[in-house]
Amino acid sequence: MNHTIKALEWRYAVKAFDPNHKLTDHQVEGIKKVLNLTASSYGLQPFKFVFVDNVEKREQLLAYSFKQRQVIDASHLLIMAIETNVDDNFVESYLDNISETRKVEKDNLTQFGAMMKGSIGNLDQDGKESWAKNQAYIALGNILTYCAVEGIDTCPMEGFVADAYDEILGFHEMGLKSVLVVPLGIRSSEDQYQNLPKVRRQTDDIIKHI
Amino acid sequence: MNHTIKALEWRYAVKAFDPNHKLTDHQVEGIKKVLNLTASSYGLQPFKFVFVDNVEKREQLLAYSFKQRQVIDASHLLIMAIETNVDDNFVESYLDNISETRKVEKDNLTQFGAMMKGSIGNLDQDGKESWAKNQAYIALGNILTYCAVEGIDTCPMEGFVADAYDEILGFHEMGLKSVLVVPLGIRSSEDQYQNLPKVRRQTDDIIKHI
Repeated sequence: MNHTIKALEWRYAVKAFDPNHKLTDHQVEGIKKVLNLTASSYGLQPFKFVFVDNVEKREQLLAYSFKQRQVIDASHLLIMAIETNVDDNFVESYLDNISETRKVEKDNLTQFGAMMKGSIGNLDQDGKESWAKNQAYIALGNILTYCAVEGIDTCPMEGFVADAYDEILGFHEMGLKSVLVVPLGIRSSEDQYQNLPKVRRQTDDIIKHI
Repeated sequence: MNHTIKALEWRYAVKAFDPNHKLTDHQVEGIKKVLNLTASSYGLQPFKFVFVDNVEKREQLLAYSFKQRQVIDASHLLIMAIETNVDDNFVESYLDNISETRKVEKDNLTQFGAMMKGSIGNLDQDGKESWAKNQAYIALGNILTYCAVEGIDTCPMEGFVADAYDEILGFHEMGLKSVLVVPLGIRSSEDQYQNLPKVRRQTDDIIKHI
């Protein structure tokens, strides 16, 4: 069994983090790098990744997290948020970035830009947000795997009151909506969940060949 | 820079696969294992992963893939599909699995079962499908990272005619809907896209601290 598979077997949704264990700056830098490397639709990256360092804010968030103390006890609290204003300007910034990074004239990107603007412009606000949310879930899959390989524990959370999070974190003003909460740190040795066998469907049940 | 970050830098959405290069059985077994290890909401795994081995079917699918020849040329063609009937029976099967795997009485899982049934039962069919689709995107993030680490190339595709795919693959009868297409294989040495610098937002633009 290779290292990544072993790491994914080792991973579980941590219920109790060790509150005394802090991730190193080096570990956090790696996580940031990996988040930014996440694949996304057209490469548009319609998301932001917000670390809540402020202890008071984390305590406020707990009240909207269905008593999941990971929000407080984990070394770092990462919120994955979607951009709510993915409009033509957003696409233009991306084209500027491509032009600069790849040293191509922006005129050569007109067709690609029109295609993105058309495809996203055809969606209503709900559609845009669902599309952006899907991209955030790619980032989640990416970071869960990366962290497991690095021996960093995580707990992906969909169960939180997103409106309250957005209010507390000032996301409205930032043009963001929170979609996922990911406490990061090291598991407590007392978390009994780490000892439970992983439950998965039989390979033949979940994988098909046609 | 660690190995995973290097691998993610190496990864790109492959435009041209080497049609002569086939993944080994060992590589494919690893991919299957990793797909099944993907985290999901409550651990419910509301998805299936379908490999299309049938060459005629792959040719039929090309017509509904906006001319993306990866569907034909990649060594393997993986379709990520959601389960369309995540109902109380689906939850019960999961509880049976937990009970068996962890050697706990099913009676002890009643509360957990009621919670899942309530939370999913509250969603209308569209809501259920969006929820399941999000989970498939976790699998996508997971497998893109895994494959990169293993030196396996991928091309995540949202651009395909899902209804036509479902029809060709008989997904209606299987209670599935296709949501993502992931050709897997080895890049052609002639694919110029592999030489382009990766375009990403500045770390300070995509990562925030509060």
